[in-house]
Amino acid sequence: MRISARNSLKGRIVSIDKGATTAHVRIDVGGAIVTSAITNAAVEELGLEEGQEAYAVVKASDVMIGVD
Amino acid sequence: MRISARNSLKGRIVSIDKGATTAHVRIDVGGAIVTSAITNAAVEELGLEEGQEAYAVVKASDVMIGVD
Amino acid sequence: MRISARNSLKGRIVSIDKGATTAHVRIDVGGAIVTSAITNAAVEELGLEEGQEAYAVVKASDVMIGVD
Amino acid sequence: MRISARNSLKGRIVSIDKGATTAHVRIDVGGAIVTSAITNAAVEELGLEEGQEAYAVVKASDVMIGVD
Amino acid sequence: MRISARNSLKGRIVSIDKGATTAHVRIDVGGAIVTSAITNAAVEELGLEEGQEAYAVVKASDVMIGVD
Amino acid sequence: MRISARNSLKGRIVSIDKGATTAHVRIDVGGAIVTSAITNAAVEELGLEEGQEAYAVVKASDVMIGVD
Repeated sequence: MRISARNSLKGRIVSIDKGATTAHVRIDVGGAIVTSAITNAAVEELGLEEGQEAYAVVKASDVMIGVD
Repeated sequence: MRISARNSLKGRIVSIDKGATTAHVRIDVGGAIVTSAITNAAVEELGLEEGQEAYAVVKASDVMIGVD
Repeated sequence: MRISARNSLKGRIVSIDKGATTAHVRIDVGGAIVTSAITNAAVEELGLEEGQEAYAVVKASDVMIGVD
Repeated sequence: MRISARNSLKGRIVSIDKGATTAHVRIDVGGAIVTSAITNAAVEELGLEEGQEAYAVVKASDVMIGVD
Repeated sequence: MRISARNSLKGRIVSIDKGATTAHVRIDVGGAIVTSAITNAAVEELGLEEGQEAYAVVKASDVMIGVD
Repeated sequence: MRISARNSLKGRIVSIDKGATTAHVRIDVGGAIVTSAITNAAVEELGLEEGQEAYAVVKASDVMIGVD
């Protein structure tokens, strides 16, 4: 499926931390770590594993801008 | 201000496209382009300009995972 | 790409209303109309057109529950 | 209360899975299952129960579009 | 309708700024101004007007914490 | 860091409830309680504690409007 979300950053999964219902998946994207909070069910359905290539996908309206 | 959002990707603003109320700001983050939709008011208040260093900031619960 | 978002409702696009930067795309999902606000750029890149089959995709953490 | 969220899909709760702080509530909306991640506190305050009629409510800016 | 969103701050609408598709509604909540970006369609359907009492409603997973 | 999020409500933390991966932080903002769901990691990194001054930060596109 192609999706309208504007941002899709390719990287590699470095850790998967499952909680009771919510999992935290961390992806290394060109040296920066991106943290994602998704459902445990999504981790299982996609068969996510550490070391796997994956994308961090974010809708443009969920991206803020910060400046120093 | 330090903020709880887990993701803060440093880059450089490559374009600012103001609409009627909503602006699209695009940041080059290590070669990947990240698009952000924020208010025109935020663009003005932060004084955002093309070429400026800035961060794309995203809450972990707004990051999805995609796999090929 | 397979995506972690838990909700993917199949329907047909009934209208596309482009604004200055943000477009509203409405999908008929089994008789219910679902409204999506996405970037004009996404509408163009996906080549969205009225009458086309499409999915309304929503992350579980963005779904609220209401009761009468 | 009437709310600005554009999407309100009527259905019936098929499961409630409480975690440590976050609950997953699944609603059958015309045969499609919609998954919602809300706080345990919301489940209790609304008195949600399996079999109950409820709405999946989503803000338009949280709906993405996918195409095959 | 009662809704699972944990945050509902009562205030008074101080301005409504309609764009091409997206409107910005600002509410005075006990002296603090809260800005909301919603669809023009929602402004019309709810019949929002300056001076009117209204609530700023936010899902807990959309609230970040900042510290100085 | 200054951030594009339009809403930053100053208050005092009244409770922190850590789950397996997700924490609920409640802030008293001028008498109203605002609930935030963030990662446990954010609670630790920011060193959040009950009684501390903090801000509830929300992007304008995540604020809905409700009317009675």
